[in-house]
Amino acid sequence: MKIAVIGASGYTGGELLRLLYIHPDIEIHMITSRTYVDQPVGQIHPNLKKLLDVKFTSFNMDKIGSCDFIFLAVPHKASQAIVPDLLEIGLKIVDLSADFRLKDMNEFEKHYGTHSCPEITKEAVYGLPELHREEIKKARLVAAPGCMACATILALAPLFSEPDLVDPSHVISDAKIGSSGGGKSFNIATHHPERTNVIRPYRPVGHRHLAEIVQELNLISNKPIKVGFSAHGVNIVRGILSTSHVFPIKDLTEKDLWRLYRKFYKDHPFVRIIKQKSGLYRRPDPKMLIGSNFCDVGFDIDPEMNRIVTFGALDNLVKGAAGSAIQCFNLMTGLDETKGLWYPALHPI
Amino acid sequence: MKIAVIGASGYTGGELLRLLYIHPDIEIHMITSRTYVDQPVGQIHPNLKKLLDVKFTSFNMDKIGSCDFIFLAVPHKASQAIVPDLLEIGLKIVDLSADFRLKDMNEFEKHYGTHSCPEITKEAVYGLPELHREEIKKARLVAAPGCMACATILALAPLFSEPDLVDPSHVISDAKIGSSGGGKSFNIATHHPERTNVIRPYRPVGHRHLAEIVQELNLISNKPIKVGFSAHGVNIVRGILSTSHVFPIKDLTEKDLWRLYRKFYKDHPFVRIIKQKSGLYRRPDPKMLIGSNFCDVGFDIDPEMNRIVTFGALDNLVKGAAGSAIQCFNLMTGLDETKGLWYPALHPI
Amino acid sequence: MKIAVIGASGYTGGELLRLLYIHPDIEIHMITSRTYVDQPVGQIHPNLKKLLDVKFTSFNMDKIGSCDFIFLAVPHKASQAIVPDLLEIGLKIVDLSADFRLKDMNEFEKHYGTHSCPEITKEAVYGLPELHREEIKKARLVAAPGCMACATILALAPLFSEPDLVDPSHVISDAKIGSSGGGKSFNIATHHPERTNVIRPYRPVGHRHLAEIVQELNLISNKPIKVGFSAHGVNIVRGILSTSHVFPIKDLTEKDLWRLYRKFYKDHPFVRIIKQKSGLYRRPDPKMLIGSNFCDVGFDIDPEMNRIVTFGALDNLVKGAAGSAIQCFNLMTGLDETKGLWYPALHPI
Amino acid sequence: MKIAVIGASGYTGGELLRLLYIHPDIEIHMITSRTYVDQPVGQIHPNLKKLLDVKFTSFNMDKIGSCDFIFLAVPHKASQAIVPDLLEIGLKIVDLSADFRLKDMNEFEKHYGTHSCPEITKEAVYGLPELHREEIKKARLVAAPGCMACATILALAPLFSEPDLVDPSHVISDAKIGSSGGGKSFNIATHHPERTNVIRPYRPVGHRHLAEIVQELNLISNKPIKVGFSAHGVNIVRGILSTSHVFPIKDLTEKDLWRLYRKFYKDHPFVRIIKQKSGLYRRPDPKMLIGSNFCDVGFDIDPEMNRIVTFGALDNLVKGAAGSAIQCFNLMTGLDETKGLWYPALHPI
Repeated sequence: MKIAVIGASGYTGGELLRLLYIHPDIEIHMITSRTYVDQPVGQIHPNLKKLLDVKFTSFNMDKIGSCDFIFLAVPHKASQAIVPDLLEIGLKIVDLSADFRLKDMNEFEKHYGTHSCPEITKEAVYGLPELHREEIKKARLVAAPGCMACATILALAPLFSEPDLVDPSHVISDAKIGSSGGGKSFNIATHHPERTNVIRPYRPVGHRHLAEIVQELNLISNKPIKVGFSAHGVNIVRGILSTSHVFPIKDLTEKDLWRLYRKFYKDHPFVRIIKQKSGLYRRPDPKMLIGSNFCDVGFDIDPEMNRIVTFGALDNLVKGAAGSAIQCFNLMTGLDETKGLWYPALHPI
Repeated sequence: MKIAVIGASGYTGGELLRLLYIHPDIEIHMITSRTYVDQPVGQIHPNLKKLLDVKFTSFNMDKIGSCDFIFLAVPHKASQAIVPDLLEIGLKIVDLSADFRLKDMNEFEKHYGTHSCPEITKEAVYGLPELHREEIKKARLVAAPGCMACATILALAPLFSEPDLVDPSHVISDAKIGSSGGGKSFNIATHHPERTNVIRPYRPVGHRHLAEIVQELNLISNKPIKVGFSAHGVNIVRGILSTSHVFPIKDLTEKDLWRLYRKFYKDHPFVRIIKQKSGLYRRPDPKMLIGSNFCDVGFDIDPEMNRIVTFGALDNLVKGAAGSAIQCFNLMTGLDETKGLWYPALHPI
Repeated sequence: MKIAVIGASGYTGGELLRLLYIHPDIEIHMITSRTYVDQPVGQIHPNLKKLLDVKFTSFNMDKIGSCDFIFLAVPHKASQAIVPDLLEIGLKIVDLSADFRLKDMNEFEKHYGTHSCPEITKEAVYGLPELHREEIKKARLVAAPGCMACATILALAPLFSEPDLVDPSHVISDAKIGSSGGGKSFNIATHHPERTNVIRPYRPVGHRHLAEIVQELNLISNKPIKVGFSAHGVNIVRGILSTSHVFPIKDLTEKDLWRLYRKFYKDHPFVRIIKQKSGLYRRPDPKMLIGSNFCDVGFDIDPEMNRIVTFGALDNLVKGAAGSAIQCFNLMTGLDETKGLWYPALHPI
Repeated sequence: MKIAVIGASGYTGGELLRLLYIHPDIEIHMITSRTYVDQPVGQIHPNLKKLLDVKFTSFNMDKIGSCDFIFLAVPHKASQAIVPDLLEIGLKIVDLSADFRLKDMNEFEKHYGTHSCPEITKEAVYGLPELHREEIKKARLVAAPGCMACATILALAPLFSEPDLVDPSHVISDAKIGSSGGGKSFNIATHHPERTNVIRPYRPVGHRHLAEIVQELNLISNKPIKVGFSAHGVNIVRGILSTSHVFPIKDLTEKDLWRLYRKFYKDHPFVRIIKQKSGLYRRPDPKMLIGSNFCDVGFDIDPEMNRIVTFGALDNLVKGAAGSAIQCFNLMTGLDETKGLWYPALHPI
């Protein structure tokens, strides 16, 4: 299958190329970039040197028709501008930007500004196969989730999958993320001497991934859920851990939670429940997920307070972006969901 | 003044020695260690080579009387064994272990086991000068606080200093800490290839610093407070950020919080309120505190949810341990509280 | 093909398992460990959880015959003890320990102690396909090279492949390596607070990889070569850069060196020559090699001094260990040399 | 004494301010910056918040006369423009830029371009007190050394302090440096995801610090010395290790080298010779020097090759810049050389 990656020079684009390169059913037919036209891919993504022999071109609607499938790794707002035309000529799309993630246009506009094709948003499917697999299979347009949203939703979803387990109005999600989550644009805040060794609160309130989290948890629970979301930059390049704190409104034992999580994820290959009593790796930690498409989830019950703690860990560039996108691609094109993605993480790293 | 550091070979002991060395009113008279008797201090603490010319001795009650003041940097449980005798001969003590922090013996025993001299615990003062300055001045025995407790308490205290501001039964504290917080004992979990790049949940429930946090917040608020405390190891050596999420039960504006925090800390030199609208350093981050005795605190109000986020950041070995201990020493001996401690952090680092 | 990994619990063993798992022609039939018998592999190598469903067993000569091929990832000296028996029953072996790397028994004994089967060493082939491909194809026993030796030899080999280019008696190799190179055993020197942020000289003279370097360069040049080798631990987990400084005895231009390196590596898929005038990635750097089997080499000519600087970069666990081992396996079993290894590195990381 | 720091917003300027703040004989009278006029120092150097209460002003020759002493922390080429006027009004200066380090104008111009006041260069003293203490005492203008030059020269100087010990034409210096050495300007190469985890060769030939190294070693040895210098960026923020490899032309034992180094540095408080047979800290490593003004030096003799390896380690912002500058200030103003600088490093960090 011939695919194009539009906006392939950033970190998400680079990770897409890495994963597409090793996917057995894909031919990377076209990669575009406004900045690097005519440069070989290895000049920008040094890990692809000698492997992938293709050059960046500029995006051109006339030529895009030779492709079978499109990945959009462009900045927020740039997707809107081309998606209608791409759909028009019958292409299927996974969009990694935020443009088609939110169903509520008010929420979208609050975080990203105006939207030029809100009607298309209606048909777009939120690209979390663990929640929307069947819809994704039939979709023309899938919006891959935000990286922190993905980790947070997957860790919390089971708790809202049955009625009245936990208080929907007091959910706290405290996320920690590596520097690659901020993308390739640099400034003084990303300068190595300034960014190294931080535990830097950023967007402790009002983070735009919150809208996705709430949208999806509302869908699962059929109730309005209030989440307080705070993000922190930590001293790694790749990886997210989202720790959520919820207050049960019903007695829940560890066994109950095991049952709940197992049931919710039993058919989902890329979610592992990590909860061990011994060993070094007892709870989810992105350390053991780098380069892989797994999201590890786990939970603890606080015996001294009426509290459940949940963890969601993933590699923000894989399951949090490019990997989820390819998982959706697989579903949309009738392939096995795990195709080209069933690789172990690197460890140690 | 002649001081002794009992148990001076660990990280807390080493940091005490660094700070005591630069303190103008102190003579380091005796340093003890069970393991390194007769070794020069620079062999164990390489940063003190050529500066501090003293050797480790074994602890000896007969010789300790030649000192004026004792710092105990021994493991939990070892302090109890010697504190009664030290007090008996009229010595003043700052104990950096947990042995005399908790007033409630049930709490103590739950986390640390039996206590051999619970009656002495009654007179011990919790060594957070921002809460107990006057008592510390008069104390014979001060128990320096736990590092994560210190960061968490200082960030939350103002919110409980006036009645009925926030919900006392739903406080969430999500702490992130560097590897030096675990001390000098090593195992596979602290092995560099395994500990690097983690965001590792550890003790997400049942952490023993919680008892200190609750004890002190209860004292401030005169009400029982419930805190859900979860700690995470992150990829730095020094530093703590404790992020707390609380639910107001009364309308609180940013101005109200500014007033509250300013008032609470106006006479406390080592707490800085960090809350800026611009610049790179808008909120507390241990990055800008390494080597210094400051604790930076800050807050944000969540407009979308009834939530206040607070931050407490510090260097776990300084304000979280050795620095607080010396701050207490200064108060106990009638010196200026900032003596020997008024140094800037290293930046960048 | 059914393979066994003997000694599969260390970092090299874990990386072998990761790569063997994704190799299309391999069935991981048996993994052994003295310490972890009956434990599932994911308990020790968390990245393999849910992917590889196999348990550690203890090594047993009676059962090993059911395998077709053996990888030995045991400590130095342990290989010797079993290799004769394994060969006896007709198994082919890649040994990742140092036991069969050195032809000169005096050199071996100087670094590793006595050898119990020196006669077998004679038939063993040094497992660097870039130097010994044809011999490897025919070998029963291949000794995978030391990680720093591999990086250093590949960077220097072209300079000794033609007579009288550089001074054979004054070669300096200054290597930098991440912490995983030291393996899984921990001690105070590998404790995260102590190992982080170092630039730690270790074995500045007398490093045991030197013997391999000299042996192989002597073979290429047909002359005795003197190398001064110094290793430094740096603040990463994976990766090696070996910088060598040599003194030409003949006028050599950049064009000459390009020709020399291109010629030497033209048929070797896993060596890339990195030398660019622009862009961020102008010279070899392990940063862009993590997880991949490439070794990047490069060179610079010093116009102010009669000096050539060469660089060899690789991931010490892949091309420096498990990857080279599988490359040899491919050759020994008639597979394409790149099979199961043709994967891009992770970037950024 | 009233001092001014011209160009105080960079890392070197910030470190100067940190050290000047804790210096007992200094009043920070004026700090200038072109970019941050009227901003409080704590906005740019967050570690100085609440400690140093001063604002940036723009540089103004009319007001500078109210100062007693000037530190120039401006970029290369900017010093030249103001030094003549500053000297004219009788001010003493330590210049941290490269403008007055090199006596040979050809060398200067090769690396930095034209010089507007070469005649002043003649009177400037190279600010390494270990080599030029007496001249510094009498100087009006001192040029603080480059950070890598400082580490390299101090490690090699003893070997050239007596005639015919080592081959002057084959010295190799292989330096490793943290990211703060590149200053505060950011670009894609300093972006955290790109700069983290590198071992990045940069300027393997033609580095401009080489000219300083050669100039100073020539002075010591009275012979022309050839040094091949190669620098590498490594994954730390602060710190340099310069490893040099030299070839003895005379039999030298460890005892000889001990004698040589001890003799050379016996009156120099800030150089420690680190060479231990046991313990964790056997050789120089910047890890144990962060925040301090020490330069640790050490050596090893290679028994298998006619080679001596030397090490020079320091904190590039302290002994490699601001600390050396203040050491010179102390000498120039008749203070004790160690005043305000006699502080231990932070450890662990």
